[in-house]
Amino acid sequence: MMQVIRYPDRNSWEELLKRPVFDNSSLEKTVTNVLQDVKQNGDAAVKKYTEQFDKVNLENFKVSKEEFAAASKLVSAELKKAIQQAKNNITKFHEAQKEKVKIIETTKGVKCWRKSVAIDKVGLYIPGGSAPLFSTILMLGIPAKLAGCKEIILCTPPDVNPAILYTAQLVGIKKVFKIGGVQAIGAMAYGTETVSKVYKIFGPGNQYVTCAKQLINKEGIAIDMPAGPSEVAVWADKTCVPAFVAADLLSQAEHGADSQVILISTDENVIQRVQTEINLQVNALSRKEIALKALANSKAILVKNTKEAIEIINEYAPEHLIISCKNEDALAAKITNAGSIFLGNYSPESAGDYASGTNHTLPTNGYAKSYSGVSLDSFVKKITFQKLTKQGIKNIGKTVELMAAAEGLDAHARAASIRSKYKK
Amino acid sequence: MMQVIRYPDRNSWEELLKRPVFDNSSLEKTVTNVLQDVKQNGDAAVKKYTEQFDKVNLENFKVSKEEFAAASKLVSAELKKAIQQAKNNITKFHEAQKEKVKIIETTKGVKCWRKSVAIDKVGLYIPGGSAPLFSTILMLGIPAKLAGCKEIILCTPPDVNPAILYTAQLVGIKKVFKIGGVQAIGAMAYGTETVSKVYKIFGPGNQYVTCAKQLINKEGIAIDMPAGPSEVAVWADKTCVPAFVAADLLSQAEHGADSQVILISTDENVIQRVQTEINLQVNALSRKEIALKALANSKAILVKNTKEAIEIINEYAPEHLIISCKNEDALAAKITNAGSIFLGNYSPESAGDYASGTNHTLPTNGYAKSYSGVSLDSFVKKITFQKLTKQGIKNIGKTVELMAAAEGLDAHARAASIRSKYKK
Repeated sequence: MMQVIRYPDRNSWEELLKRPVFDNSSLEKTVTNVLQDVKQNGDAAVKKYTEQFDKVNLENFKVSKEEFAAASKLVSAELKKAIQQAKNNITKFHEAQKEKVKIIETTKGVKCWRKSVAIDKVGLYIPGGSAPLFSTILMLGIPAKLAGCKEIILCTPPDVNPAILYTAQLVGIKKVFKIGGVQAIGAMAYGTETVSKVYKIFGPGNQYVTCAKQLINKEGIAIDMPAGPSEVAVWADKTCVPAFVAADLLSQAEHGADSQVILISTDENVIQRVQTEINLQVNALSRKEIALKALANSKAILVKNTKEAIEIINEYAPEHLIISCKNEDALAAKITNAGSIFLGNYSPESAGDYASGTNHTLPTNGYAKSYSGVSLDSFVKKITFQKLTKQGIKNIGKTVELMAAAEGLDAHARAASIRSKYKK
Repeated sequence: MMQVIRYPDRNSWEELLKRPVFDNSSLEKTVTNVLQDVKQNGDAAVKKYTEQFDKVNLENFKVSKEEFAAASKLVSAELKKAIQQAKNNITKFHEAQKEKVKIIETTKGVKCWRKSVAIDKVGLYIPGGSAPLFSTILMLGIPAKLAGCKEIILCTPPDVNPAILYTAQLVGIKKVFKIGGVQAIGAMAYGTETVSKVYKIFGPGNQYVTCAKQLINKEGIAIDMPAGPSEVAVWADKTCVPAFVAADLLSQAEHGADSQVILISTDENVIQRVQTEINLQVNALSRKEIALKALANSKAILVKNTKEAIEIINEYAPEHLIISCKNEDALAAKITNAGSIFLGNYSPESAGDYASGTNHTLPTNGYAKSYSGVSLDSFVKKITFQKLTKQGIKNIGKTVELMAAAEGLDAHARAASIRSKYKK
């Protein structure tokens, strides 16, 4: 069961809100070796590790047209319809993130603007295993397509679940490779005979994949964000429905034994009623054992007042925050650190995980203090432009010259003055 | 002088466009030790390293009101006016990057939106040394203020140039600390008795500072972007003014012996005339020796046609790109990889470095393939929100349930179904 912490002292918050620490350093050597091998030996190394780790011997990693067609037949019509609705909503929300070019004349004759330009080549990693995360293909593939990325490749370990292939096809990803783990990250980072090198890699993964992403990031390949176990904080008052809150906490707890679940309330009665509901609901879950382990690491925190609730949430910076309180909009306005916020009694986290339209790739581990979730922005660079007329450089030339001279940069000053003085 | 490469074969581009490689790994141990010392011993460690590296013995790192006032008197009225014009233009350009909240109803009863929220605490690092980069304070401090960051701290090594203190004060940064190098990055990352811990660190620096930023980034503190030596590519045709192109190439070359300068043209005559101009202009520079060293590493590349020019520029992904060609706007539309683009004969890079309004903190080293320069976005997180009505969760509940079930996540499905079925 969740541990109840009553009125914790401010000084204890940091310790209380700490995430489990995962020290990658013991994996680093293994991961580096696999990456280096893939860098040097390409497909041959990928093949070797696929045999070793996935126990599959593949002649061809690339998913064929026939495999796509076969997968499509294995997905039920009702699941297809569901995926289509999710796709529509995610598309609507991310399409609205397109930025119009605004030309700003900062000084007469000096026009500046910025333009979003797709990252040419991106790679998506979708883990395999017990939960085939085809929903993540929607969350990464849709904005990649909307941004206009020319080359989108997807790696996922064999055997590939049909829903993964169906969803990839639906969002228009044609290059899917049956490659998992560190070897997949290496293939996308360095390129092999069959997998082309990309400029940015997205997607979740286990600790090995996370470590591989960190290492290739150090070499200059961008990644979506640092990763950590999923987490939710629910802030509830007496207007909440305890059965809903319990369902939300359990939906996070079932992700993994390392998932974090936090309940915050100013009302001890709410905490008790939610705990009772958890006990009632947990038995019905197929992933009960996982959920119970996650709950054992989780906390129900009783705080003095609304102000303290806001402070503790901002200090925790949850990936997901559900506000099941009266005046939820006004309370949400005070939250400065969170990945995604779910307002009111009818907005479960799972709505955002699949179908509300927001992106489910969000900052964990307190990174919501400085990182945003994945959005259309994640798939573009914003290039700035400036165009000066002859009068424009005259209007700011003196400023450029004085500042450059004060910084000791003569040639910078000259590049402006040579133009200002030009007689033609 | 610049080496001229005539019609390089496509296969040779990768090698040709390679940046000098800086291997940080030899510094990593030293840098780690300093960081750990600052983490454990706070101000005492900062004081020790300030004595050791900066040869200054300080009782108090924080710049006092008196020091600010004294600095202001040492900056000339005309430089103040210049800094003010730059500030106005940078403010105008970055203010236009504010994003309005748009509420998207993705399905009836399902409303989603995102809101930019300032990163609470940010740290700016401004190097000292020969060139006091007060312009970088404008480029980082103005968007930090516009974003609404609550705590903005600035570290810069002693002795601090008056223009740095004047500019910090002008943009409203009150907490300036006379701390440089790795110890500054450590102080901002971990906090000390006098310097508070921040969530994101911005600013340029030498290889030690860069290495320190990489290391603290691995620990979860965000950084602006990976760093590398500054660079410019100039694409010129016969409509260019060779004296201007030479001035631009030299203004980049004077930055440092490791700066990269690339000239691209389809016209060999243009390359010759620019080289001649460089010879004429270089002697007038106070940083002539540095510029000559940088030029020795630099290249003038003669390409077959416009198409090839575009391809080679996109492959190089320059931090700065100047297009001194006819139809510069149409050509710029084909560029997908660059930090900032300068259009036409009257838009020198130095205009953007100081005063056009665009940000001069830009991706180097080919990172323009996947990273944007600093903007207002760099100082905010974009938090997403969703609010569903009871009808809203009914409208997408089935989709959530089906997708969650297909991913093997029961409790996710239940969090939706328990609401859809709720009878109150």
